[in-house]
Amino acid sequence: MVAVNSTYRPRDLTINGQRLNDTLHQTCEFGAAHPWGPKATETGMARLALTDSDKAVRDWYVAEMKSLGCEVKVDTMGNICAIRAGENDGPPTAMGSHLDTQPTGGRYDGILGVMAAVEAMRTLHESGRKTKYPVAAIDWTNEEGARFPKSMQASSVWAGDITLEDAHALADVTDDKVTTLSELQRIGYAGDVPCSWEANPLGAHFEIHIEQGPVLENAGQRVGIVRGGQAYKWFEITIRGRDSHAGTTPMDCRADPMLTAAHFIVTASSIARAHGGLCTNGIFTAKPGSVNTIPNEVRFSLDIRHVEDAQLAAIEAEIRAQTAQITKTGYKVECAIEWKPLYANPAIVFHPDCVAAVRAAALGNVAEKDTREIISGAGHDSCCTSKRVPTGMIFIPSKDGLSHNPEEYSTPEDCALGAQVLLDAVLLYDSQRTA
Amino acid sequence: MVAVNSTYRPRDLTINGQRLNDTLHQTCEFGAAHPWGPKATETGMARLALTDSDKAVRDWYVAEMKSLGCEVKVDTMGNICAIRAGENDGPPTAMGSHLDTQPTGGRYDGILGVMAAVEAMRTLHESGRKTKYPVAAIDWTNEEGARFPKSMQASSVWAGDITLEDAHALADVTDDKVTTLSELQRIGYAGDVPCSWEANPLGAHFEIHIEQGPVLENAGQRVGIVRGGQAYKWFEITIRGRDSHAGTTPMDCRADPMLTAAHFIVTASSIARAHGGLCTNGIFTAKPGSVNTIPNEVRFSLDIRHVEDAQLAAIEAEIRAQTAQITKTGYKVECAIEWKPLYANPAIVFHPDCVAAVRAAALGNVAEKDTREIISGAGHDSCCTSKRVPTGMIFIPSKDGLSHNPEEYSTPEDCALGAQVLLDAVLLYDSQRTA
Repeated sequence: MVAVNSTYRPRDLTINGQRLNDTLHQTCEFGAAHPWGPKATETGMARLALTDSDKAVRDWYVAEMKSLGCEVKVDTMGNICAIRAGENDGPPTAMGSHLDTQPTGGRYDGILGVMAAVEAMRTLHESGRKTKYPVAAIDWTNEEGARFPKSMQASSVWAGDITLEDAHALADVTDDKVTTLSELQRIGYAGDVPCSWEANPLGAHFEIHIEQGPVLENAGQRVGIVRGGQAYKWFEITIRGRDSHAGTTPMDCRADPMLTAAHFIVTASSIARAHGGLCTNGIFTAKPGSVNTIPNEVRFSLDIRHVEDAQLAAIEAEIRAQTAQITKTGYKVECAIEWKPLYANPAIVFHPDCVAAVRAAALGNVAEKDTREIISGAGHDSCCTSKRVPTGMIFIPSKDGLSHNPEEYSTPEDCALGAQVLLDAVLLYDSQRTA
Repeated sequence: MVAVNSTYRPRDLTINGQRLNDTLHQTCEFGAAHPWGPKATETGMARLALTDSDKAVRDWYVAEMKSLGCEVKVDTMGNICAIRAGENDGPPTAMGSHLDTQPTGGRYDGILGVMAAVEAMRTLHESGRKTKYPVAAIDWTNEEGARFPKSMQASSVWAGDITLEDAHALADVTDDKVTTLSELQRIGYAGDVPCSWEANPLGAHFEIHIEQGPVLENAGQRVGIVRGGQAYKWFEITIRGRDSHAGTTPMDCRADPMLTAAHFIVTASSIARAHGGLCTNGIFTAKPGSVNTIPNEVRFSLDIRHVEDAQLAAIEAEIRAQTAQITKTGYKVECAIEWKPLYANPAIVFHPDCVAAVRAAALGNVAEKDTREIISGAGHDSCCTSKRVPTGMIFIPSKDGLSHNPEEYSTPEDCALGAQVLLDAVLLYDSQRTA
C-alpha cells in the first residue's frame, strides 16, 4: 500500500518527446500497411501477433532494452519483461502494453504504451536515477485477439484467468493447424520464465494508451485518468438452417440462417443501444457460400459492452430472449441458434493508489481542466493485471475517436505528455512503495 | 414448326429404369460428399465445374457415348455433345443438362438430366431405331455458377448472351488466378468446336430436371410440364463504412456496414415476400474480420426472382429505394451501398411445340391428374437454349422440395418415368420435324 504524497514534484526527470515519436514511427516500419496519406508515417499497421513483423519489432525491443542495461525475461507466453534494477529487490513496478495490432490497425494502439515505456527507461538510464524498487517495461503478447481469438491472451494467462495450455492451443482464426504455441516457437519467443502472477509477480502495472474514443477530444481535454474498464462479453453465434435452392424454395418453406442472422444483428444492436451499451458484429461467415443457395450455416461474432455489469447482463438476457423468437423465418422449418461464449470481462475498477498516482502525475503536467476521469471502453492488458496487482492507466486523445483503423492518430505533443505522465506516475508510486 | 400428332403412341420404346438409376449412382462416385445416411448412395455431391471429379465423370461420359456409336464433339466451353445420326442430316434434337453440382449439392440436380439422356441413347442404340434427324445428348459446362460465378455459363455462351472471352476469363470464386479457360485446359476439355448456336446449331433442346421445389410433391403429382422460367437477377452488394474500435466507438458515431447489411437483408426479404417473389443472400464476407473491430466493408450476394419481369423490376426498385434510407446507422457518418449486377435473366417462355410434345409424352405415361403445368423457379441450360431454338422441359418431384442440398432426393420410379417422358417427347418431336 502506498500513500500518495501531495507535495510530489513530478518533472525532475523529463522524457524526450521527439525521440519517443521518432522511435515509435521507426519501429512501425515493422508491419506498416494501409497507406492513407503521402508521408511515410501516414500508414496504418498490420502487425498481427507472432507474425514475422511482430518478431522483427520484438527483436528490436529486446536489443534496445538490453542496451539500456535491463535484464530481459521472456515467459512461456512470449511476454517480454525488461527489468531495470532498483535500490531494493522485489517485484518491479511495470509499464506495459502491446506491440501487436489489428489487421487494419493504427500506429498508436498498444504501440504507444510500449514506446512510452522504452522512452521512460531511456530517461531513467540517462539520468542514472536509482529507483527504490525495480522498474520494468513489458510487451504483452496478443492483446488484440485478432489473430488468435482471445484478447489480452497472454496477460490473461499471467493473471490466471485462462490456462497456459488453453492459450498455447488457441489456433489462428484463418488456419486451424497454426497455434499460439507453434508460432511462439517458430519466431523464437517461447520463453521458459513462468507466465504467472504468482511465480513471476509485479509490484504494480501502469499503462498509457490512446483513448480510442471521442470523449477527450470532444471535451478539449488532454489526459484521461482511467478509473476502470467497461464490462464486456464476446460470443460466437452459429445459426443453422437448411441449404436449399434460391429459385425454387418458397419463402415460407425456408430455414434461412442468413435472414435469421440479419434479424439477430438488428435486434441485438437495438437492445444494446436502448441500454446505453455497445454491440458489434465484426466477423461473419456463411456456408456453403453460393449465390443461388440458401446457406445452411452462418457464424458471426457478437461483442456487447456496458459500463455496469448488471446492465451488460440485462443486454445479454434481452438479446437471448428476443432472438429466440426470430428463429422461425419460414413456416415449415426453424433455424437453431447456438451461443458459444468466447470471453467475458467484468467491469474493472483500478486500484485507488494507482489512480491517485496518475492523477498527481497528470496535475503536475497540465491544469485540472485538461484532465478527466474516464472509464475505458476497450479491454487492455491492465484490465488483467488489475486482478492481481495495483494497476492504473493514462489515456491521451484519439483524433476523431478513431482506433482499430489505419488513420488512428494522436499528436506528437499528446504522446509526449502521456509518456511524461507515465514516468512521473511510476516514479511517484515507486517513491511511496514500502515493499 | 411441328404439329403434335394426338394419336402418337409413346411407349414403343421403353427405357430401362433400373439401369438408369444404377448408372446415376455409379457415376456419383465421382465427387460424392456429405454423407447423410448409412447407404452408399446416401451422400450428396461436391462436383464443382472443371474440378478433377468433373473431369472424371466427363471422361466416363465420353467413353460411354462413344460406345453407343455416337460422334462426340467438345466445344470451346467444354460442352460435350454426343450425336447419334438420323435418317437425314441436320441439327440434332438434343437432350441436355449438366454434370456439375453445388459445393453441397445432391445427386439429381443436372445429373439426372444427363443420365436420362444417356439412358435414352442406350435405348435407341439397343433398338436400332433410326430417328428422322440426328439426336444428341449434351453435358453443359458450369450450369451451377458455384465455382465460376455465372450460372449456365456455357449455355449462355452458346446462346450468345455472353462472349467466349468473358466466359473464359471468369475466375474461380476462391482464387483469382484460376480461370475457366485455365481449368478447361488443365482437365483437357478446351475443345475446338465453336460454342455457338449459329456455328454449331441444335434442332431443339429437351431437358428433364428435378423440380427443386415442393409444388409437385405437395400436389401429389408426378410430371411437371414446364411452361417457362422465372425471371431473376443476381447482384453483388458492397457496403462500405468505417472500421473502428468496438469498445470505444459510441453507437451514434459509427458507420457500421454490418448493421447496414443486416437492415438491407431484412428489408429486401420483406419486399420480395410482399410481391410474391423470392430473395436470397447466399454469400457474405466482412473485412477486416475481427471480433472487436467494426468492419469497414461487407459484401454479399443478392438473388431476387419473380415469375413476371415487371414484378421483378418492382422488387429491385423498392429494395434500392428503401435500402438507400438505411445507410445512416450512426449520426455522424454514413455507409455507402454499391450494387454490382452479376446476372439478369428475364422470364422465359418455352416453345409451344416442345411444351406440346412434353404434354403428349407425359399423358402417354400417366393420367392427366398426375401432371401439372409449372413455371421453373430455377435457371436451367434450357432457359439459354430457348432463346435460340425450340425448347421444352420435364420436371419430376423433389422430396421435401429440397435441392442444392446433399439430401436432395427423387424416387427411382420418378426418375425412370421422367426419362421415359424425355425419350417419348424427343421421338415425338423428331417424328414431326420437317427440317
